[in-house]
Formats: sequence, structure tokens, C-alpha cells
Amino acid sequence: MEYTIGRYLIDRLAELGIRHIFGVPGDYNLSFLDSIVDHPALEWIGNCNELNAAYAADGYARIHGISALVTTFGVGELSAINGIAGSYTEEVPVVKITGAPSTVVSNAGKLVHHTLGDGDFNHFSRMFSEVTVAQTTLNEQNATDEIDRVLRMCVLQKKPVHINLPVDIHSKPATMPTTPLLQHLSQTDTTSLNKLIKHVLPVIEKATSPVILADYQVYRYDAYSTLKTFAEKTGFPVATLSMGKGVFDEDHPQHIGVYSGKTSTPYLRKRIDESDCIISIGVRLTDSITSGFSQGFSEEQVIHIMPHEIHYQNKTWNNIELNDALMALSTHITKRDPETLDIKPILSQDEYKHLSSFYAKPEQPILQERFWELMHQFIQKDDVLIADQGTSYFGAATVPLKEHVTFIGQPLWGSIGYTLPALLGTQLADLTRRNILFIGDGAFQLTFQEISTMARQQIKPVIFVFNNDGYTVERAIHGEEEVYNDIQMWNYAEIPSVLGAKSTQVKVSTEGELIDALENTIANTDTLHFIEVVMDRMDMPELLNKVGKALAAQNN
Amino acid sequence: MEYTIGRYLIDRLAELGIRHIFGVPGDYNLSFLDSIVDHPALEWIGNCNELNAAYAADGYARIHGISALVTTFGVGELSAINGIAGSYTEEVPVVKITGAPSTVVSNAGKLVHHTLGDGDFNHFSRMFSEVTVAQTTLNEQNATDEIDRVLRMCVLQKKPVHINLPVDIHSKPATMPTTPLLQHLSQTDTTSLNKLIKHVLPVIEKATSPVILADYQVYRYDAYSTLKTFAEKTGFPVATLSMGKGVFDEDHPQHIGVYSGKTSTPYLRKRIDESDCIISIGVRLTDSITSGFSQGFSEEQVIHIMPHEIHYQNKTWNNIELNDALMALSTHITKRDPETLDIKPILSQDEYKHLSSFYAKPEQPILQERFWELMHQFIQKDDVLIADQGTSYFGAATVPLKEHVTFIGQPLWGSIGYTLPALLGTQLADLTRRNILFIGDGAFQLTFQEISTMARQQIKPVIFVFNNDGYTVERAIHGEEEVYNDIQMWNYAEIPSVLGAKSTQVKVSTEGELIDALENTIANTDTLHFIEVVMDRMDMPELLNKVGKALAAQNN
Repeated sequence: MEYTIGRYLIDRLAELGIRHIFGVPGDYNLSFLDSIVDHPALEWIGNCNELNAAYAADGYARIHGISALVTTFGVGELSAINGIAGSYTEEVPVVKITGAPSTVVSNAGKLVHHTLGDGDFNHFSRMFSEVTVAQTTLNEQNATDEIDRVLRMCVLQKKPVHINLPVDIHSKPATMPTTPLLQHLSQTDTTSLNKLIKHVLPVIEKATSPVILADYQVYRYDAYSTLKTFAEKTGFPVATLSMGKGVFDEDHPQHIGVYSGKTSTPYLRKRIDESDCIISIGVRLTDSITSGFSQGFSEEQVIHIMPHEIHYQNKTWNNIELNDALMALSTHITKRDPETLDIKPILSQDEYKHLSSFYAKPEQPILQERFWELMHQFIQKDDVLIADQGTSYFGAATVPLKEHVTFIGQPLWGSIGYTLPALLGTQLADLTRRNILFIGDGAFQLTFQEISTMARQQIKPVIFVFNNDGYTVERAIHGEEEVYNDIQMWNYAEIPSVLGAKSTQVKVSTEGELIDALENTIANTDTLHFIEVVMDRMDMPELLNKVGKALAAQNN
Repeated sequence: MEYTIGRYLIDRLAELGIRHIFGVPGDYNLSFLDSIVDHPALEWIGNCNELNAAYAADGYARIHGISALVTTFGVGELSAINGIAGSYTEEVPVVKITGAPSTVVSNAGKLVHHTLGDGDFNHFSRMFSEVTVAQTTLNEQNATDEIDRVLRMCVLQKKPVHINLPVDIHSKPATMPTTPLLQHLSQTDTTSLNKLIKHVLPVIEKATSPVILADYQVYRYDAYSTLKTFAEKTGFPVATLSMGKGVFDEDHPQHIGVYSGKTSTPYLRKRIDESDCIISIGVRLTDSITSGFSQGFSEEQVIHIMPHEIHYQNKTWNNIELNDALMALSTHITKRDPETLDIKPILSQDEYKHLSSFYAKPEQPILQERFWELMHQFIQKDDVLIADQGTSYFGAATVPLKEHVTFIGQPLWGSIGYTLPALLGTQLADLTRRNILFIGDGAFQLTFQEISTMARQQIKPVIFVFNNDGYTVERAIHGEEEVYNDIQMWNYAEIPSVLGAKSTQVKVSTEGELIDALENTIANTDTLHFIEVVMDRMDMPELLNKVGKALAAQNN
């Protein structure tokens, strides 16, 4: 069989480690899907709709490093565009492939379906140029070069790219790739790196209260191990932002908590705000993770180690990759005695004992505070936690985690409903880790049909749906009793079986029922567990209560 | 209480006849929603997600003339953008209002949630400029003028507009409107109209086989009555395209059928293609309604009466509204004797008798062909039919309709799943008409949660879901047995009650069961009826079979 442009594209995706491609079929992509189905290394995952496909691809890339999704032209790609915008915002590399009308049809500007009917076939590419770092429309001549160009941009910049693949083009002949897509992945300039060490190392060495503040870019640039090495070589305390929760093990003796500006614990707030040297690693200070920009430190205190460069006061060192900067600093730095650094673990002995000896009151309704205390016991080493941007996120953000737990939320883009389809992606990306989703009823209603695809793929995550009768996160900000924050009451616990899932599904209202459900997930790991948790509509994690007030103030 | 910019906007929407506003709350729009909830003439309809809200608004406008929806910034508006693109493409006036971050925040380019995090707050306005005819960002100075400008554009051009409403602006003071929004709605230039009559009337009068071909713009420009008057004044036969099915009563003696190019009946094809004067009214010839541009006539034969102008051969008469053109022609034209015009009704006496005496075979599985025959009896005067772009559309397109039945589909934009949320809008727009939805299982899975909002609003449409195990419309084009055209099997008939609906829900597999279900909808009109119809996966309406082949050829 002749080697084709479509096969070239798919081979390159497989070379990048992609094993599942998400999407929805449409007549402009159907024949290309044949190539995916036929490829030995790849599996087609058909989603219920395109937004869900984009969310799933985002989740897959957060665990697996990169992902791809295919939709049809116009209708399909615009349904997905909010998901792609989220990937762009939170720096997740996703390859968006659009099956487009044939070259003959678009050149003639024909009045065909899935266009705006005005003969202009570039509307959607222009729209995607706002939320992707590279775009291309393939033709017979440019295809292989263009595929390589945009895929490299996707990998290096950790952001989505958009490929328009006209329905007549994928079957045209191509030459098989002969060189790897990525030859010199590290872009670090050693001269720049040496200058950095010379300038910044003395600053760190002479600081009296140094601290490390790490965030989500550590996940994206695969720097979990390097950060750990760096932290242990220095002995410095480490805090994260909630968006990067888990990039440093929370049961590590140097971990001091999740910093959130003025809503942090008094110790943590003081330890960060008054540090004379904050080594900031892959951090972006957004409103919802800092309780409305309430961080109490200033630029002069911070050495910014960013994905491709380092800033300190008025200086910038370019072309240094985050991992390389951390490794070089680790090599040269002097380790401090922890006793000199005011390191207070997030849990005192007493608190740890309290959490570890959680004593259920079987008849008591489930309260947010006690739910999250219980989660401290339930969540285990290597779990993947996914929390939607409401009570779920702000509750989960406060649970101290064990070693190598990955935490996934979307606090900057903040699209409610994102996490349920994202869970499909995170679980498929690594079937060996237990995936646990926390989502509220309001968010659930946006995208819940993707449980259907989970059933079809026979994956076995644990899903908690908080039934608290509406948009509690919105009530925290404005309109506590307003009708627009109400939603229709559903029989949540019946949903998986209606969507064809062979799952264990329960509705729990008391601590006793909740404990039984948790024990069942441990006893019976060979099934999807769906747990509807009934809670009071105005019960919310303390952090959400405070952040809600900060965001309301920002809107005045 | 002080009169505000927000109230001004809502008063203008109410002035345009809008009584329901669709959307999803978010922190950048919550306080504006207070003004909607408080307004005496308007009701807030909270949707399950933003794409569904946009579809519902589109449906509402198709029946009610115009509609509005409110979402939050970024995440909300991008989720809705595919729906707005559909409204743009198919000429449906929808006012899209986005609650945006405060002016202070956006002027400072802050790193706040629901932005791309790059300080540029205009990405989404630019994206919407591709799919709307007017856009604005309101501020204290420009608000009332800008509101009036974009709303006029929406009404006159019958296309969506985009209003960015920063969260701090809606509560600022404004002056109540003193003049109506629309003073001189008709834009017709009488000189131009007189020239048209002088030139075109003789062409029509001397034609030997004139025919009227009408399409969906007759719906949009509210020309149903004028078209009827014009047709009856001329005596000419009338055909429609499927997109405009119902713009002329199908039980009218002058109605000759739904033209679809080469897949039309031999009589209809000949009657249109060989006419020496086709009076084309509000028509756009797209691929899916012409079986791949297979119309058999040429430009010279056609007088194009368009929304704002008339074309004939190499001449154009500008600034003439469609209704005014039809009324003027009606006044001057000579009526023909129908005997001279070769008018063949769509149903012969025998065929009509056959349909009217449909004899159910109680044990027989339900076949597409016989299902649609039965629908001829079931669908009554004044019903609103909504058919999704698959077997549903191509099946319903062939059912001869009674007087004043409105037919709604989306064949040009063609976004599957559109119709279910659209039904929420069409039914709320007019509670006195029975609404009937036809949708396939594949399409249903994209957007079905909006049944929840129907339950909440206690509306009572009849919903048919065809369970034929996958994307049959795609199988018709490519990949009949491919895994990407399969979907997960759901227990469809259980869904409404799980979503909190007090509906009548049944699953039918035989003609006997189907007849019982239909009779129950008639006996019991005070409930939503949900009917899951089991059909064979490759059974499809003959028209879809043919169109599928034409579209597959177009993709080569």
C-alpha cells in the first residue's frame, strides 16, 4: 500500500508517544479515520461530543505529555475550541486536526455544509490562530514539512496547534520520515547558563530565609524529579501554588504547604512573604490561586525560573530550559541545615494523628470539612486527582497528599465541566494509576455524557459527584439564593447504568454510607465507582468561601 | 432605583419581543442576571451548558423572530460559539451577551481566570467577529448608542451580534430610551421597486411554464403570508427546498413538492429544471439540499428574489425588501388558469388514500419508510417539526405536511445535536403549538441533557429518538462497518426520569407499540412524551441514501 500524507501525520504522532486519538467522526474526516483505525500503535477514541473530546485530549496530555484530537470542519472544531483555549491557557500540548472540505471545493468557494456559506474557508483557521501557537492547511506539496513544523512547535511551546487536513489530501502520496522529529530537544545555551549560575548562586547562598515556590509548569516541563533533587540538594522548604499542587511531594519533610496569598496559614504566609529569596519555579500568579492577587511579596525578593528563561530583579538570562537551570543549580549549591530554615511541615504531629484516626459518625450528614479530612486517608501514593473548578477544587486543594500524587484542575481557564471528560484522558494515559474525580452537580451537568465513553473503554476510575443542589461556587461569589444558581435535581446515581456502564453506583448522605462506599472501592477495584455525595447547598470549603469574597471584590 | 445600562439593554430586548433569555451563570455576569430576574417582562432560562443555550436561543429566534443569550467570558462564550456560527450561517438573529471582567482589570491586563493569561482581553471579540455582523464592548460613555446600533444590525441583517458587557458597567447609570429602536424598518426604495416591476413583470407574464421555488429566507423575513398571497395571485405551482419546507403549505393545491436536484421525483425535476421562468424566493442552493449541487437549471432561467435585492440575468435591483417585492408583484400580476401550468400535487389521489389508510402490522419491526408514512397522519396543522441532520432530517423532509406546519433543520451548518436544545427554544417561543422532535441516537448523545431544562420549564413536546446503533448518516457516506461510526448503547427511554422529568417515556420496537405510543401522545397532552424508536442500523430514508452517495463523491 502506498505511503500517504495521512499515514505520515499519524506516524509522527505515534513517534511522539501518542497511543490514543480522541474525536468525533464527520464526513470530512471519515476516510482519514480509516488510517487511524488501521495503524498498529494507535487507538481511536470516539467521544460523545467535540468539547468533551478536547477536554479528554487535554487530560491525556497532562499525564502523557502530548495528545491529539480529530473533528470535522466548522461545527466540530468550533465545538472543541473552548477546550483548545483551555489547553492554550494552561500550557497543554494538544494537536488539533480538522478534516476539511476538499481542495477543489474550497478553492471554488462552494456553498457546502459546515461552512458559513460565504465562500471563505479560512474563518475557522483564523479563530484557532487566537488559541494555538501554530497553524497550517496541508496540501500535496507542503504536507510533510508543515506537519513537522507545527508538531515541533506543539512540543517545544507546550501549547496546542491546528492542522487543517482537506479530505482529498490525506490519501496523497508522501515519503516516510527518515529523521526523528525532535533531534536537539534541549534549547539551553550553556554560556547563558554559566552567567546565570555566576550571578544568581551567590544571591541564594547568602540568603538567610530562602524558600522554593513551585507551580504547574513543573508538571508541563516534566521537572518533578529535578525539582525534588534541587530541593533536597538545598534543604530549602518548598511550597506550591494550588495549580501546581503535587509537583513536590506533600509528605516530604521539606514541604510546607500550598500558598494562596492572604488565605494561607499564618506560618506559610509569613514564611513566603518575608523570605529574602523566593526561588519561584514555573509559577504564574493568577487571581483564583492567590485569592485575588493577595500575595504579600514583591518582585525584588524573587528569582523566577521560567520554562525557557530566568529573571532576577532587572536581569534576564535567556535560552535556559527549566530542567537545565535546576540541575545546574543543584550541582553548585551548598546544602543548608534544615534547622536554620524555619521549616514547619503542613501537618503537626497532632494534626496528622487527628487525620489518621478519622472516626466516622455513621449517622451524621456529610460535611465538606470532614469529607476532605477523610480524603486524606483515602488518597494513596501514585493516585491521580482531578478536581473541577468549584467546591471540588478548593476542597481538594487543602488535602495533604502522599508521595507522587498528581493533582489536576483548571483554575486559570476555569471552564466548569472540564474535569469529567478530562478524566477519560488522564485514565487512558496511564491505566496503572488510580484516577479519582471530584466534581459538583452543576459542573457535572455540562459534560457528564462522557461516562459513556469510559464505559466503552472499560476504564475504572472513582468518581465523586457532589449533589449540593446548584452552583455553590457561584453562590459563594454572588446571588446565594437567586434562581440562576439553581439547577434541576437529577437522579445522579442512576446515570452510569443508563449510559450503558457496568459500574458500582451509590448515593451516600451520611458518613457511614460514605465509608462503606470508600471501602467498596478498595475491595472491588475491577469496576468504575460512581459515588453521589449529598451535601448541603451552602456548605463549602473554607478556602472557597474566602476566594469567593476576593473574586466578588474584584468585580466591583 | 437608578436606571442603569443593564436595564437599558434588557428593556431594548423586551421591546424587540424577547420574553426568555437563555444562558449559564458565571461570576462575570451574575450581577447582570439580577436585572434579568427582576425584569417584569423577561424570564431567565438557565441551560445545562453554553452550547445548548446557544442552540436553544437559535430555536427560539426561528419561531419568535429574535432571541438573546448570556454567558460568561472566555469559557462560556467559546462553548457557545459553534451555536452562534450556526445562527450566522442560517441567518438567525441572536443577541449574544458576554459578562466580561471589569474595565479596571482588563485595562490593567491582569492575569485573571477565564482569560488566556496573556493580558489581551480582545481574543474572544475577534473570534466572534468571524461569526457575527456587529460587535461592541460597552463602556459608560458609549453604551446606549452601541446597544442600539448592534441590535438594529441584528434585526435588519437577521444574524447574530456580540455584546461585551464588563461586570462593572451594567450597573452604571443610563437614560431610559425615548424613541423606539426601530422606526423605519422597511428599507425598500420605491424607485428601485418600480423599475423592477417594469422590467421583470413582462418576463413573468410571457413565461409559458413559470414556477415558484421558495426557501428558508421566507421564514426568516416573515414572508409566509406574502408568499401565499403571491402564489395565489399568480396561480403558479410552488416547490420549496427542504431547508424551507413548510414556507408554503404542502396541502395547498399549488404545492408540487420539495425539490432536491437529481433526487427529486421525475415530474418535479422536469417541472423545475425545464421551466422558462423560475421565481426563486429566498433560496440558497447548498450541497446537502441539492444532493451535491445537482440542480438542473441555469442562471438565465431564474429571477432571484432575495432578502434585500432582486437579481435577474445581468441586472440587480437593490434596496428592495423581500416582502415588498412579493406584494408589489402580487398587485400587478395576471392570474393564470392552473390547467395551463402543469401542476401535479405531491400526492396523487391513490397515494393520499394509501397514506391516510396506513394499516399497521402490529408485530412488524419499525422500518424507516413506514415510520415516515405514519408521520404523515400524525403531524397536524400548526405543528412545529424539528429534525436533526441525519436520518431524521432526510426522512422528515419527505413527509407531506398539512397547513402551517413549520419545519426546522440545520442542513447548511449541519451541527449534529443542534435540534434537541433548539426544541427547548422553539417550544418556549410559542407554547400553543405542538412541537415534535426527530433525532437519532448519535446526535442525541451530544446535547441530550437539555431535556432537564425542558422538565424544569414544564414544557410538553413530543420527542422521537431513533435508536439505530450509531451514526447512520455517516455510514451512508463512508465506513458502514467501521468502529468510528459505532456509539455506546444507552437505555434511552430511562433518561428523562433520571434527569428529573415527569414525562411519559417508552421504548418501541414494533408498529403496534409505536401506534400505541402515538395514541397516548394524543390522549395525554399534558406531559412531555419521549419515544425511543428502535430501528435497524442500515435502514435509512431513500433520500439520505442518495444524498450520502453525492456527498461522498464530493469528498474525492
